[in-house]
Amino acid sequence: MANFQINILGCGSATPSMKHLPSSQIIDFRNNLFMIDCGECAQLTMRRMKLKFSRLNHIFISHLHGDHCFGLLGLISTLALHEKQSALTIHIHAEGAKLFKQMVDFFCRDLPFELNFNIIEQGKTQLLFENNSLTVTAFPLYHRVPCSGFIFQEKPKMRHIRGEMVKFYNIPVRCIHDIKNGADYVTPEGQVIENSRLTTDADPVMSYAYCSDTLFDHRVAQAVAGVNTIYHEATYVDDDHALAIARGHSTAREAAIIAREAQAQRLIIGHYSKRYTDEDTLLKQALEEFPNVILANEQLRVDLL
Amino acid sequence: MANFQINILGCGSATPSMKHLPSSQIIDFRNNLFMIDCGECAQLTMRRMKLKFSRLNHIFISHLHGDHCFGLLGLISTLALHEKQSALTIHIHAEGAKLFKQMVDFFCRDLPFELNFNIIEQGKTQLLFENNSLTVTAFPLYHRVPCSGFIFQEKPKMRHIRGEMVKFYNIPVRCIHDIKNGADYVTPEGQVIENSRLTTDADPVMSYAYCSDTLFDHRVAQAVAGVNTIYHEATYVDDDHALAIARGHSTAREAAIIAREAQAQRLIIGHYSKRYTDEDTLLKQALEEFPNVILANEQLRVDLL
Repeated sequence: MANFQINILGCGSATPSMKHLPSSQIIDFRNNLFMIDCGECAQLTMRRMKLKFSRLNHIFISHLHGDHCFGLLGLISTLALHEKQSALTIHIHAEGAKLFKQMVDFFCRDLPFELNFNIIEQGKTQLLFENNSLTVTAFPLYHRVPCSGFIFQEKPKMRHIRGEMVKFYNIPVRCIHDIKNGADYVTPEGQVIENSRLTTDADPVMSYAYCSDTLFDHRVAQAVAGVNTIYHEATYVDDDHALAIARGHSTAREAAIIAREAQAQRLIIGHYSKRYTDEDTLLKQALEEFPNVILANEQLRVDLL
Repeated sequence: MANFQINILGCGSATPSMKHLPSSQIIDFRNNLFMIDCGECAQLTMRRMKLKFSRLNHIFISHLHGDHCFGLLGLISTLALHEKQSALTIHIHAEGAKLFKQMVDFFCRDLPFELNFNIIEQGKTQLLFENNSLTVTAFPLYHRVPCSGFIFQEKPKMRHIRGEMVKFYNIPVRCIHDIKNGADYVTPEGQVIENSRLTTDADPVMSYAYCSDTLFDHRVAQAVAGVNTIYHEATYVDDDHALAIARGHSTAREAAIIAREAQAQRLIIGHYSKRYTDEDTLLKQALEEFPNVILANEQLRVDLL
């Protein structure tokens, strides 16, 4: 089981179709589930992928278009029926909080869990969630309505301690934590043993950026610079570039340019327009700009290695 | 192609599951589509069943529980994207009209069609729709919140004229319509030819009643008396009768008793609780009370013959 896994629940645009469901993803980070966007039928795919409702405590809604949030009410109802107990926080722009709160108050009375709305502020970089091992930060995207991307950033991990050195210097247990965090060890005789002799490098930290929906904009590349894996919308092919501009979306090529500029390791594309019978051209055009591109698909799981 | 067809889009209860989707049906009456209830994912099944969005002009919402209406916003958005032009009327209880209007105003701006809300009044029998060949009437059901059933009643059809008699009496074309409607024919010589000699019986008229969600109540049988085909919720088996009472639902046996009391030709049961792995017991218990029972299932089509 990976510690950091992207689960695609839906990667179409606009409306559920025979091929794709509207936008939704679940980030499984050390068995805690974080949902990004919640298009209609998201809860059904979640069930199909055996992602446990009880482990979901945070939902991040990028913007208030129906294909990114019309599954929210049904999901909240289902969580109530499953007798979820821990609090659920919905991170959402202010107008969405107001509208959905009203609907929840009417349709989901007597929720067995605490429901919080955390307001995402328009056009800002904003820390939305933090625990010992992860932060989730919103940053601005450039769409027809206020829209935010999200970065899931794993916190630096502790260095690995070398068991044979612990034994050799007879290091007491109470010192281990500091050494894992980079401290040297001083023996009872006053000898300083450098950390580099006592430990090996920590595992690399992983990060994931979600960018949907947005125009092609270099500021997005700057915001997600250095992130390991980027999901970027790729609604259109080159030939439909004018549509992308008109509707506040990107082409697959533009998504790939963002990944390249951000020096990402990997790009996942999605939010495909319904006008294409397959995603071959989208993939081909993205690959012309960036070498490591994955086509999103319903029920796809991507491990951040 | 049948002239009067029931299409089941969803027949589960509470929440979409691996087995069943929440409540929704499409009545296809002479190629005009009427939707009853609109649970989440209803639009997707509609698409799968190749029921054309452009032919849908009326949606009837029985009550304001999420499993009967959470697909509404997504469907309206999809109708807008399909550039529907004719008006759409949503027949719904007053609070639902208020809430959904607010959501539509925010999420579905610039609808390319006229959207009307027709308020269903609580606890009354009410004509909701009428054209030359069909009426749709709401009647009270008995659930935890205000809830209405719907009767689709085909209007009486014209009698079949006997071609050989038209020829024999040399009946002028202008008289045919009245004769089909039951008039006698008077020859130029003043001889009265009785209608029964000129015509044969009209085709039978069909009717359909939708009863979900409701407690077992004899008043429901009275309201739907004489209807050809009844859909009645059958959430529970006998052993869970106490749950049915507590939650304002019926057992399969009770649904069948309603069909028998109403002297229906046929019963369709649905709104199955998720607790059962199959519907065998529901069917068996219904059949002990009424001989002609059909288990609803997603994508099932039932022709009213």
